[in-house]
Amino acid sequence: MNFRLIIKNLGIVLMVGAAIMLPSLVVSLICSEGDAMSFLITIGIMVPVGFCMFRIPVRNRNIYTRDGFAIASLAWILLSLFGALPFFLSGCIPSFVDAFFETVSGLSTTGSSILRDIESLPKGLLFWRSFTNWIGGMGVLVMMLAVLPAAGASTIQMMKAESPGPDPGKLVPKIGQSAKILYIMYTALTFVLFIMLLAGGMPPYDSLVHALSAAGTGGFSIKNLSVGEYNNVYYEIVIAVFMLIFGVNFSLHYQTLHGGFKNIFRDEEFRFYLFTIAGAVVLLTWNTCGNVYDNVWDSLRHSFFQTSSMITTTGFSSTDFNLWPVFSKSILVILMFIGGSAGSTAGGMKCVRFVLLFKTIKREVGRIIHPRSVYTVKYGGKTVDSSILSGITNYFFVYIIVFTVTLLIISLDGFDMVSNFTAAAAAIGNIGPGLGIVGPTGNYADYSALSKIALSFTMLFGRLEIYPMLILFAPTFWKRVNI
Amino acid sequence: MNFRLIIKNLGIVLMVGAAIMLPSLVVSLICSEGDAMSFLITIGIMVPVGFCMFRIPVRNRNIYTRDGFAIASLAWILLSLFGALPFFLSGCIPSFVDAFFETVSGLSTTGSSILRDIESLPKGLLFWRSFTNWIGGMGVLVMMLAVLPAAGASTIQMMKAESPGPDPGKLVPKIGQSAKILYIMYTALTFVLFIMLLAGGMPPYDSLVHALSAAGTGGFSIKNLSVGEYNNVYYEIVIAVFMLIFGVNFSLHYQTLHGGFKNIFRDEEFRFYLFTIAGAVVLLTWNTCGNVYDNVWDSLRHSFFQTSSMITTTGFSSTDFNLWPVFSKSILVILMFIGGSAGSTAGGMKCVRFVLLFKTIKREVGRIIHPRSVYTVKYGGKTVDSSILSGITNYFFVYIIVFTVTLLIISLDGFDMVSNFTAAAAAIGNIGPGLGIVGPTGNYADYSALSKIALSFTMLFGRLEIYPMLILFAPTFWKRVNI
Repeated sequence: MNFRLIIKNLGIVLMVGAAIMLPSLVVSLICSEGDAMSFLITIGIMVPVGFCMFRIPVRNRNIYTRDGFAIASLAWILLSLFGALPFFLSGCIPSFVDAFFETVSGLSTTGSSILRDIESLPKGLLFWRSFTNWIGGMGVLVMMLAVLPAAGASTIQMMKAESPGPDPGKLVPKIGQSAKILYIMYTALTFVLFIMLLAGGMPPYDSLVHALSAAGTGGFSIKNLSVGEYNNVYYEIVIAVFMLIFGVNFSLHYQTLHGGFKNIFRDEEFRFYLFTIAGAVVLLTWNTCGNVYDNVWDSLRHSFFQTSSMITTTGFSSTDFNLWPVFSKSILVILMFIGGSAGSTAGGMKCVRFVLLFKTIKREVGRIIHPRSVYTVKYGGKTVDSSILSGITNYFFVYIIVFTVTLLIISLDGFDMVSNFTAAAAAIGNIGPGLGIVGPTGNYADYSALSKIALSFTMLFGRLEIYPMLILFAPTFWKRVNI
Repeated sequence: MNFRLIIKNLGIVLMVGAAIMLPSLVVSLICSEGDAMSFLITIGIMVPVGFCMFRIPVRNRNIYTRDGFAIASLAWILLSLFGALPFFLSGCIPSFVDAFFETVSGLSTTGSSILRDIESLPKGLLFWRSFTNWIGGMGVLVMMLAVLPAAGASTIQMMKAESPGPDPGKLVPKIGQSAKILYIMYTALTFVLFIMLLAGGMPPYDSLVHALSAAGTGGFSIKNLSVGEYNNVYYEIVIAVFMLIFGVNFSLHYQTLHGGFKNIFRDEEFRFYLFTIAGAVVLLTWNTCGNVYDNVWDSLRHSFFQTSSMITTTGFSSTDFNLWPVFSKSILVILMFIGGSAGSTAGGMKCVRFVLLFKTIKREVGRIIHPRSVYTVKYGGKTVDSSILSGITNYFFVYIIVFTVTLLIISLDGFDMVSNFTAAAAAIGNIGPGLGIVGPTGNYADYSALSKIALSFTMLFGRLEIYPMLILFAPTFWKRVNI
């Protein structure tokens, strides 16, 4: 393990993190609700600490997979600790564990909150919450690679550790350039969403924070009742459509920009994504119409919004789906596990994994029926390597294990099983609200400190797709290789 | 697909099935509570139908994997349909769907019941229920191979389809001989349990049915409150220990008979099994002591019994664990998924799969940290073939998918999520009771006919380890190859 290299990179992360805090500082200065000082102090700590770490002399500058993974997981933990300071120092969140939970929830694009009354927070801090959603969506390290002058070829390991999906592709050969293109597309799409909300009559500040939270598929709202508070069909449709857009692989967006829409429908993951959305909307509309809502349009409206919010793991709500029939709630829980597309800002297990898992099972059945035929799993016309397939099935298992361990730990608090189950699923899938006490009108405040810490780590496990976090728990990782 | 061969073998299955019904007929004749006629009629239908099917001329007598799998799945469906007739014809279960559910539940060693008042049934039918547990535990086809004079080498495919675990081994080179040894050990252990219950003062009939149900890890009791009705520590300890014995791979028992106890503790699956049991008992005792039970002995007593019952997927209960704290209930649910050992009569995913899944994840982490080292997964000192490993990870996925589909279907009935979740888990894991309305004091009577049929098929999916059932749903399976 090249600890010097890791510390150096973490130093850069801290300085970039301080820069990321500047927009929130500006907002808090403009609104002058007393939270500016907490940002100033935090930045005042982060910059010198980061600079000292950055100055550590490094002998070997090659970043291996293990180093990239360690940088990613430690960077996210570090940023969450420092990012919690504004909440804590301002006194808005008096418990540091709570502040840490809220920040991890923001950065990991989960959107779970321990706040009982969101609307009481100063605007600067509320902006910071949504901004962590936005940064966390595309990634801190991707941001770092985008803004740093010379990113070497081996920095791909850091990008790999942070990018969701089994095989994170580069858009163009140069990594720094790929990262720049990603952030430009991301910013542009967020801006379009912001303008569209503004055009529909949403106040500028509200439009901005909701655009940021939606883009990162994070789901932090500034309203206690989330998007449902506005009770506005236009907002809901715009946000729902954009959540779905942000849940699509950004390399598909890039291809669409260059080659039009013909490629996008050839993509098997995208087809699975659309098919799942369509299926869920139909079933939810059918199931909620007549008992929760009087007419099919209301059912369709809320079914579409909730489906979009759940499959993209954003976690906004337009209605209290905790009151929906059990069948509908079960569908929402399943969407929580599926998640969005690889290479998007969404969480969950990702559609592409399900596509390949189902193909693997189809192959197994084929082998039993016709043992002499040769069966390969194809994706996008190409044979998928068996090591990728086994990586995906292993990922499914380890995902369920992390989920189960979290579930057990938080069960100690004694809340009902549905709340615990969906809280754990929402944490690892980076969704936000669940059912029961953590439903759309509830929050995570009542869980114990132990549970909040467990859920925080589970959110990071989910955001970084488990392995970067898991290696921190391997004894061999801590054997001193090179310092 | 060799349909003629399949039909011929199903004919034998029906005749063997009629023979399996004879002990119940004897019991009903002795007790003369009016249920004998229903057994007579059923046997009177099964024998001629079976004989006609058996007489079909077959050209190719080679049983390929697909044929073995098809024989297994169709045999279990057919036997469940005919096995339901005594319940239905006697009028004790007026709905045929209910009778089918009860029979599948028995044969698959699930032990879920639709009966609101078990104790009102005639003794012959109650004996039949427990006897289906016993036969289903070791397997109908294994029984057939044990009693038939000449079982060819290719009949291994039938045994494979019915035996639980990723790699069902033969005890001795000859299949018919292996099947005989299995049934002899099985009968002997059941007899010992029977004698021990009898010696403790349990009435002979009660001892017999509980011995049969425990041996098959089925869990059909003749009491509404299951084993808890007796409130007898001796019975509970004896039954709990024997459930654990029946949850161990029978080839280990065979080795122990020949080489003593030295081999058994070298077995990695057995160590995992013991470790899980010990861990669960400790956690449950700690969690229930002081709030559910006044003293540590009562906690230990019920924790041990419930752990044994859940991990072996038997489903007996000594207490209403529905009233336990959420943490304890969560542990029981996890045990439901783990299950017993491969090659035992228990259900669930089986311990060996978890051992190998955890080793696979350890290897993945090792590969990230030291990419140049060669990592293989070893089990019992031997390197495990990658095709076996991928088969296991695929099994984990397909298990969860079948579970999820079942959960969705039964959610339509509108019962609470915990009941649905544990009902689906209990069905695929062949456990029996779950939580909520299907808890130890509840039953499955209130679910709709659709849900009962879905749960019945899920029990068969679980008992046959999915693939034999899954191929029935593959369109290519039904292409006529040879008739």
